[in-house]
Amino acid sequence: MDIELLNDRDVDFLLYEFLDTDALLERPVYREHSREIFDAVLDTAKSIAKDKFANHSHEGDANEPQFDGQQLTLIPETKAAWDAWAEAGFLAAHYSLDEGGMQLPETLMRIAMAYPTAANASTAAYGFLTIGAANLIRAFAASELQARFLPAMKMGRFSGTMALTEPNQGSSLADISTRAIEQADGSYKLRGQKMYISGGDHELTDNIVHMVLAKIDSAPAGVKGISLFICPKFLVNEDGSVGERNDVQLAGLLHKMGNRNTTSTVLNFGEQDGATAYLVGKPHHGLLYMFQMMNEARIGVGAGAAIIAYQGYNYSLNYARERPQGRPVSNKDPQSKQVPIIQHADVRRMLLAQKSYAEGALALCMYGSSLFEDSRSAASPDEKESAHELLELLIPVIKSWPSKYGPEANSLAIQVLGGSGYIREYPVEQYYRDNRLNSIHEGTEGIHGLDLLGRKVLQKNGMGFNLLMEKMDQTIAEAKSALALADLASSLQVGSSTLSQVTENLLGLLGEDLELALANATIYLDLMGRVVVSWIWLRQALVASAGLKKSADSEQESAFYHGKIQAARYFIEWELPQINMQAKILMDHSDVCYAMRDEWF
Amino acid sequence: MDIELLNDRDVDFLLYEFLDTDALLERPVYREHSREIFDAVLDTAKSIAKDKFANHSHEGDANEPQFDGQQLTLIPETKAAWDAWAEAGFLAAHYSLDEGGMQLPETLMRIAMAYPTAANASTAAYGFLTIGAANLIRAFAASELQARFLPAMKMGRFSGTMALTEPNQGSSLADISTRAIEQADGSYKLRGQKMYISGGDHELTDNIVHMVLAKIDSAPAGVKGISLFICPKFLVNEDGSVGERNDVQLAGLLHKMGNRNTTSTVLNFGEQDGATAYLVGKPHHGLLYMFQMMNEARIGVGAGAAIIAYQGYNYSLNYARERPQGRPVSNKDPQSKQVPIIQHADVRRMLLAQKSYAEGALALCMYGSSLFEDSRSAASPDEKESAHELLELLIPVIKSWPSKYGPEANSLAIQVLGGSGYIREYPVEQYYRDNRLNSIHEGTEGIHGLDLLGRKVLQKNGMGFNLLMEKMDQTIAEAKSALALADLASSLQVGSSTLSQVTENLLGLLGEDLELALANATIYLDLMGRVVVSWIWLRQALVASAGLKKSADSEQESAFYHGKIQAARYFIEWELPQINMQAKILMDHSDVCYAMRDEWF
Repeated sequence: MDIELLNDRDVDFLLYEFLDTDALLERPVYREHSREIFDAVLDTAKSIAKDKFANHSHEGDANEPQFDGQQLTLIPETKAAWDAWAEAGFLAAHYSLDEGGMQLPETLMRIAMAYPTAANASTAAYGFLTIGAANLIRAFAASELQARFLPAMKMGRFSGTMALTEPNQGSSLADISTRAIEQADGSYKLRGQKMYISGGDHELTDNIVHMVLAKIDSAPAGVKGISLFICPKFLVNEDGSVGERNDVQLAGLLHKMGNRNTTSTVLNFGEQDGATAYLVGKPHHGLLYMFQMMNEARIGVGAGAAIIAYQGYNYSLNYARERPQGRPVSNKDPQSKQVPIIQHADVRRMLLAQKSYAEGALALCMYGSSLFEDSRSAASPDEKESAHELLELLIPVIKSWPSKYGPEANSLAIQVLGGSGYIREYPVEQYYRDNRLNSIHEGTEGIHGLDLLGRKVLQKNGMGFNLLMEKMDQTIAEAKSALALADLASSLQVGSSTLSQVTENLLGLLGEDLELALANATIYLDLMGRVVVSWIWLRQALVASAGLKKSADSEQESAFYHGKIQAARYFIEWELPQINMQAKILMDHSDVCYAMRDEWF
Repeated sequence: MDIELLNDRDVDFLLYEFLDTDALLERPVYREHSREIFDAVLDTAKSIAKDKFANHSHEGDANEPQFDGQQLTLIPETKAAWDAWAEAGFLAAHYSLDEGGMQLPETLMRIAMAYPTAANASTAAYGFLTIGAANLIRAFAASELQARFLPAMKMGRFSGTMALTEPNQGSSLADISTRAIEQADGSYKLRGQKMYISGGDHELTDNIVHMVLAKIDSAPAGVKGISLFICPKFLVNEDGSVGERNDVQLAGLLHKMGNRNTTSTVLNFGEQDGATAYLVGKPHHGLLYMFQMMNEARIGVGAGAAIIAYQGYNYSLNYARERPQGRPVSNKDPQSKQVPIIQHADVRRMLLAQKSYAEGALALCMYGSSLFEDSRSAASPDEKESAHELLELLIPVIKSWPSKYGPEANSLAIQVLGGSGYIREYPVEQYYRDNRLNSIHEGTEGIHGLDLLGRKVLQKNGMGFNLLMEKMDQTIAEAKSALALADLASSLQVGSSTLSQVTENLLGLLGEDLELALANATIYLDLMGRVVVSWIWLRQALVASAGLKKSADSEQESAFYHGKIQAARYFIEWELPQINMQAKILMDHSDVCYAMRDEWF
């Protein structure tokens, strides 16, 4: 069974109905573009995804990268996919035309990249990592370093990694112990070990450019002493050609549950003479730089989780339509024909829940991307700042909510298929394994809870939070006058007011008892996620409701819009009310977990 | 890191505090036993589990069974484990002394079998399957057939399977198409294909005894025309020796996400001359027989899910105690030492949730086992009937709740370990994969929802349901007078009254609109699960509260009991209230999923 990559109608809906992508064309930076160009870009992305990525999703899982101590081997389809993606220019699609890019808006870029992810998330990851690393260089490195590394990274001759984590530090970046010693020529020598470095070694490119967090000797303790370095696998000559091997060695591969065709590596920096590296920007500013670029990466993780959920939904939906089994509960005639399982109400529940998670998560991430775009290209500085602050607030939700409910959706896809869902002869169990990574990397769910409640809600005097509340009020007001949505609007109103009360309450507690106030931050994150995704769904329902009026004569269009409204109903009526329980836990300052003692376990 | 198998103190608690296993010793059938004997049996089980099962849990996953078209190969440790388990007599432990068994009560048997499952659920499955098949023969087959097959199955020379599912039928047993044709000598020839048959082929034993559901020609349509057959891989001579190969062929292996060392097979029956088989009991009574033995199998699935959750909890707890990372949120000094992650409130939340799921699920299954025991050995017929009816009602919960929340617990174990949780270098990702099977086999969650609401609640005029309500009332009354538990008792009272109202409401709807009434049956199942497990936790808390008074001078004992009470608090305060939302959905007869149309997806 061939699986559609995402859903063409839904992609159009997201770009041109839910978001106003047409309006982007009026911004000076995108005036050369047109909807036709955007469509052509997405067609290219989709076609490469189908031809070069989808063909080895299962194979890359079944034949994960092998390292024999000398040679690292990936299945050859991986390089063919990398080359096709790079040749089509997608590694530089967001660069300006002057820089040799496509000058593509963030939202278009996000959908373009969604196709290879939908086809093969593991292989697609190499592109994401390279773009992320190049973005850091482009934003913060000296022009000489940019000239040396960026052209090859944009063309896909070099790839990139983010080398943050170390064996003894995990989420605690303050405890990074990789050391950097300045050399006479202004370069540095790195010594240390990094772990869980995705794409840390492979044969796809002539060189791998590691963006490494390390501490310069005599740096301040903690996160304020972290610097960012470029440390390539091979040194690069002045003319851009690849030179000597640098002292960066693959110590070994880690063997993941899913997402297997992305190498996960342990890297030794400087075991012999020290690994030659170049400081990016100013000393001790490494974490600051990283954080400034993290929003994109975190939208990327959320979107990846949404897209894997989406593919599980697509597959299980097709399966449910084609697989005959059993009869309606009221039909007691065993000689009547079996019906497709989509006719069983509980199967529709599992599909509708998946739809609400997958499409809700993707719409959330697309909204985040549009904020990111606005923060760069909106007309006024005020609009830019608003978009930036709202995005800052939403980032923990955009990263975490899809990463939590995407795997939920994939579990439901397994359940729809039953026994077939549990075996590797069908793709849904791989989605379940692949997706489980997303609530761990780029900040665990717990870390994002702390970030949200301990930092983001308060940032700029709560500017992001207040903007969110305003925007929700606006949607609620609009939906109240759209007749069929008035109930959903009221439910969201209760939800948003609950969020507001809980937030106020916890902000009060933060000053009194920091530890207790943050103890249940993960619950707060989930509560906000439910409210925000309900809002995203109500917005989709509003657009769908308008669409219904315009398309009364097209059965197909009507069905699409009805589906959106029903998914909104599902989410707001079946999923949102769980916040009542969460709000009680939070407002009571429940210490059930906080007070649990080590020795009581 | 070595992982404890279950928890000795908790096993004692379950058997001798939560359940009154001592009282069993007063029943005539167990009068020869003593606590010392029980302890010795469990010690043996644990020691075999440690020595012969734990050693290849990872290996069996990494090197799953291979079939080259001729030869089926399992890693050799599997057979060593099987042999040790059989030699110790555990395949016949529940048989009477007269039958050559240990005459072990059901609850003891359940704990004994828990150890190999904790050590290696995949390898342990062969024993479960064999016991289940033998139980069917013992209960329903003619004495001649019993004499031919049972001795070898009890000794582990033969193993057994349950061959129900077919490629085109899945959960819909009415549509079984395997045919049985009677022969002149009274035996039958089977023709058909069975799929997802666990343990359907392997080299562990001299013979494999398949219990096959098939239809005799001219049988009534649907489930009323299904008969049960014994169909061995090799024919068995009169003297019990293994004879000719029967016409049962392994068509292929299915490749599961987890649980890999249990072969999952496609079997062809009778491709050549027909597979020789023997009718068990009367024609067309197959499903009835199966159902009568299914309660044990379903407790087994629930217990298996609970135990895998338990092991994930054990592992992540040890990890959280040993792994230093980060500092309390109020400590801003980066030069202070990192603390073990158990000191982070959110990690304690993830551990406490796991504890509440794993220990709650195991206690639930042990309670189910005690009902099963009572249904056989209680003093009076009334007591037997009550135990049977309560168990009948609870079976969908006992099977489904651990199967749903066990994998939840395993996901939390991954999250506690972070990146390490996601790689195969640590065991928790395997638990997550292994456990995902449990909500699929022995009836999917959806099937059990229908069974609960469409059948069990009404059975014998609601006898089981009324008994459950009475028992909950009793626990609530006791807990109200135990000072520290009064709040929890009140919460459960609200919960049980919610369950009662919802049930009454839905029973009303059943007569009016069967399809709508059953549309949300899975939600009803989950609601009842939350209430029942809350009750199980309140019962544990009551016992712990009494234990606390008696053991004030032992820090270790006090800590254990405090942990039980805190886990009860967690479950009842943090998890039970979700039923409010579920009750609303059910009482509103929400048609959000029911009304969703195929074409709207």
